[in-house]
Amino acid sequence: MNNLNFSAGPGALPQAVLDETQRAIAMVPEAGLSLLGISHRSDWFAAVLAEAEANIRRLLDLSADYHVLFLHGGATLQFSMIPLLLLRGRTRTAEYLHTGYWSGKAIPEAQREGAVRVLWSGADSGFTRLPTDAELPCTADAAYLHYVSNETVEGLQFHRLPGRDDVARVCDMSSDFLGGPIDAGRFALIYAHAQKNLGPAGVTVVILHQDLLRDAPDDLHALLDYRNHIAAQSIFNTPPVFAIYVVLLVTRWLLRDIGGLAPMAQINRAKADLLYGAIDASDGFYRGRANATDRSLMNVVFNLPSPALDAEFLERAAAAGFHGLPGHRSLGGIRASIYNALTLDAAAALCEFMLDFRRRRS
Amino acid sequence: MNNLNFSAGPGALPQAVLDETQRAIAMVPEAGLSLLGISHRSDWFAAVLAEAEANIRRLLDLSADYHVLFLHGGATLQFSMIPLLLLRGRTRTAEYLHTGYWSGKAIPEAQREGAVRVLWSGADSGFTRLPTDAELPCTADAAYLHYVSNETVEGLQFHRLPGRDDVARVCDMSSDFLGGPIDAGRFALIYAHAQKNLGPAGVTVVILHQDLLRDAPDDLHALLDYRNHIAAQSIFNTPPVFAIYVVLLVTRWLLRDIGGLAPMAQINRAKADLLYGAIDASDGFYRGRANATDRSLMNVVFNLPSPALDAEFLERAAAAGFHGLPGHRSLGGIRASIYNALTLDAAAALCEFMLDFRRRRS
Repeated sequence: MNNLNFSAGPGALPQAVLDETQRAIAMVPEAGLSLLGISHRSDWFAAVLAEAEANIRRLLDLSADYHVLFLHGGATLQFSMIPLLLLRGRTRTAEYLHTGYWSGKAIPEAQREGAVRVLWSGADSGFTRLPTDAELPCTADAAYLHYVSNETVEGLQFHRLPGRDDVARVCDMSSDFLGGPIDAGRFALIYAHAQKNLGPAGVTVVILHQDLLRDAPDDLHALLDYRNHIAAQSIFNTPPVFAIYVVLLVTRWLLRDIGGLAPMAQINRAKADLLYGAIDASDGFYRGRANATDRSLMNVVFNLPSPALDAEFLERAAAAGFHGLPGHRSLGGIRASIYNALTLDAAAALCEFMLDFRRRRS
Repeated sequence: MNNLNFSAGPGALPQAVLDETQRAIAMVPEAGLSLLGISHRSDWFAAVLAEAEANIRRLLDLSADYHVLFLHGGATLQFSMIPLLLLRGRTRTAEYLHTGYWSGKAIPEAQREGAVRVLWSGADSGFTRLPTDAELPCTADAAYLHYVSNETVEGLQFHRLPGRDDVARVCDMSSDFLGGPIDAGRFALIYAHAQKNLGPAGVTVVILHQDLLRDAPDDLHALLDYRNHIAAQSIFNTPPVFAIYVVLLVTRWLLRDIGGLAPMAQINRAKADLLYGAIDASDGFYRGRANATDRSLMNVVFNLPSPALDAEFLERAAAAGFHGLPGHRSLGGIRASIYNALTLDAAAALCEFMLDFRRRRS
């Protein structure tokens, strides 16, 4: 029943990945040991890291100018590592978009290291839409532009790349990474924690262009300096072996079972169409939170006509086996997260449940 | 065959823990979901964290004056977080012991934040022994004393507490945490990554006395500030759910199957006695690296009469099913890591192999 897991993260993983993970807990045949007891410096783990990196490069068609790292600390540590690299001791200003809960968390960390300009904030409009290009006064001399491609809490997703191609584009893709093809070459740095589309909590993928390392500060704590992780090929200190192995299995699944990111995007679009379709055809019974043009293909956030109906909906959904539907604690309501591993069948089942619930209650 | 895993870390875990972990990958009955797809903000995970903390408190007989945290970043991040809390912007000097590979890694990070005095270094003597109390000029006005209780690489372990009780005692216990009873109340801060005695790589336990938080600096990056993790009860950002769950299972195993830390220490002592006994009775064929009084009960490090014999020993041991015996890449030789989960039978089997190998070759 794992495919009825609509949790916003840690979220569902493909059943084939869970099955293989389970076998590896008992024993990894190539190593003759449990996955949990294998040295991170073994040949086996070196091959795991190399294949996981190669798969991500292949999925994103990444050029050799980029480094691919697997780090500790979640996306939150990246909120700090990025300005430590790109803003500390510099005179230029970093530009940030404040489009929701998570982009708001990144800003104070950057402000510790230098000048930050918030180009646009959705706070006044309750984070129900994203800015248009005309609303973004991006400048050519910015240190970098930071934004979050998919705001998990509010269900907002950029369906274009904001910013200028002559300024380093830095993107937190935690909740839509590998959800569909991207033009990776137009980013300077991409980061994504694993626990949405990519694997279990405990590892974060960072993809950064080698040019960002020019003029890196020399006074950084060792673990906060990307250069150490690059030099050590992600084993500067003991990495989260288990989480990285599961990421490898997920990338294999994407390549082998799904066929890459274009088919993955089609499936994700179909799931989102089902749920947004149910919302749009409900005569206002289901009320989508996000502006239609900025709706997320990963997190479908909506309310019913009253908090009492929200609560009843959630209670009946849980009883029917739909897990993880309550909205973020800051917003309430309903959030259906439909990450890569959530099947079209599961989305269809929720759609049917929504139609049925509306019929009974409206 | 997981009990023949002598890896220095990630190391062996108890078979009962692996079995239960495997079942949880399929489904955690209380949650109805795979362990990998459960929200860290679920009631189920709150109970996991609470029980893991309670078990550690019970095992160590910890007073309520201490906080217990489960953090990202490995022990290496603690090398930084500790001086960020206790040294940054202060006038007092931190005292560090340099007793081997890992304590040496902690020192440069502290030096970024303030004055550091290395009270003693084993570098000149090749890190083959630990200092006596007479060799440690600990002062009453130090900011804190930092040391590593068990040097995993060199196989050196303190069998007493160095330092003064009127100075904050800060200890990296990564490789002997929960290996036996300690007088926890005499420490200000204890940290230990999981991947030796405690669980898989990816989580670090930090135990700190509340008095350390007085006068904490106000300019720390959010993830590097213990106060945020304390306030959020270890879910300031998404924690490594899987690794923490396995830590819970290991603490249950210690309490239920082993009966606590005193019996655990007896078993560990018996394993070490077997292997050191084989070394001491070998007429110099096996040469223990550490001074006898400072020998580690966790990592038995030794050489044979020649590098060629070291290599032959390792090759035959691997063929006989003994995993993880090569010494650290900085030292070579042989290292048998006999963490909590390695059984007395496994140590006895290695002992027998050593006797047999010696009979054939000497």
